[in-house]
Amino acid sequence: MLTRLESAIRTIPDFPKPGVQFKDITPILANPELFLEAIELLKTPYSSADVTHVVGMESRGFWFGAALAERLAAGFIPARKLGKLPGPTIQEEYELEYGTDGLEIHSDVLGPGNRVIIHDDVIATGGTAAAASRLVKRTGAEVVGFSFFVDLTFLKGKDKLPEGVPFRAVIEV
Amino acid sequence: MLTRLESAIRTIPDFPKPGVQFKDITPILANPELFLEAIELLKTPYSSADVTHVVGMESRGFWFGAALAERLAAGFIPARKLGKLPGPTIQEEYELEYGTDGLEIHSDVLGPGNRVIIHDDVIATGGTAAAASRLVKRTGAEVVGFSFFVDLTFLKGKDKLPEGVPFRAVIEV
Repeated sequence: MLTRLESAIRTIPDFPKPGVQFKDITPILANPELFLEAIELLKTPYSSADVTHVVGMESRGFWFGAALAERLAAGFIPARKLGKLPGPTIQEEYELEYGTDGLEIHSDVLGPGNRVIIHDDVIATGGTAAAASRLVKRTGAEVVGFSFFVDLTFLKGKDKLPEGVPFRAVIEV
Repeated sequence: MLTRLESAIRTIPDFPKPGVQFKDITPILANPELFLEAIELLKTPYSSADVTHVVGMESRGFWFGAALAERLAAGFIPARKLGKLPGPTIQEEYELEYGTDGLEIHSDVLGPGNRVIIHDDVIATGGTAAAASRLVKRTGAEVVGFSFFVDLTFLKGKDKLPEGVPFRAVIEV
């Protein structure tokens, strides 16, 4: 049986391009009760992990990511496509279906002693989350967990992430 | 005397283009104490306003916006540039320095009886916030407040917004 969170996810065929079944989580965000339930489920596995920062992936990872940081009393760090952050940054590349893309964070926001969760709304192939993880490690901070709302398990994104780091997806598709 | 929130805002010259003094709020997000203080200040004027939804502007308005929605136990609705939302939308145009741009929200998330706050990190000329306000009104919902972290007062963005609707900016520059 589907949970009410699963039922609220809307599948949009052929978005953003033909052949993709896009998982739209905005109906959950728009419903106060579901939104709070989702945040609570994202938070629970990391409540006692002494998280200092949540890194949220541009831009759908900003939604639950910022609210999760607030709920964990942690800081929030946006990971963005290249050229959108105004200060000095560090960068990592990741593979796309054709070619590569870049991800960056500000270079002066994390360091040794920080305990970081990497969040995105959906994990697909895992490329961006793996790139975010490399960025965090380069600062000397520790990745203490991965947090996703939806895991498209057939794409095996989890296999791209470092072994031994806690992984949480609220919903598996 | 500057408050510690004011002191934490970083001014980046010539970003994203020559002549612009960009107000970077990411140092506040990254600091758990300042992040929570900022959210609390954004929330306070609307604590008793029976807010049902926060509309956050792409994409820097997603950061405080989503956390503010969570803190108010309200839903969160992203207002995005055209073509980025997967479901059916309603759209409004707003003026840029040269030409116009578009803003949209999903058409099925708001309606009569909803009480909405419109949030962005910075209000400059007020064009996008005014467009968001028109979008909300078209759904039959009520705009019960505008919420910004920084008001660039010399650009007089407030004058573009509907009169009589509460307006809150945590910091005036």
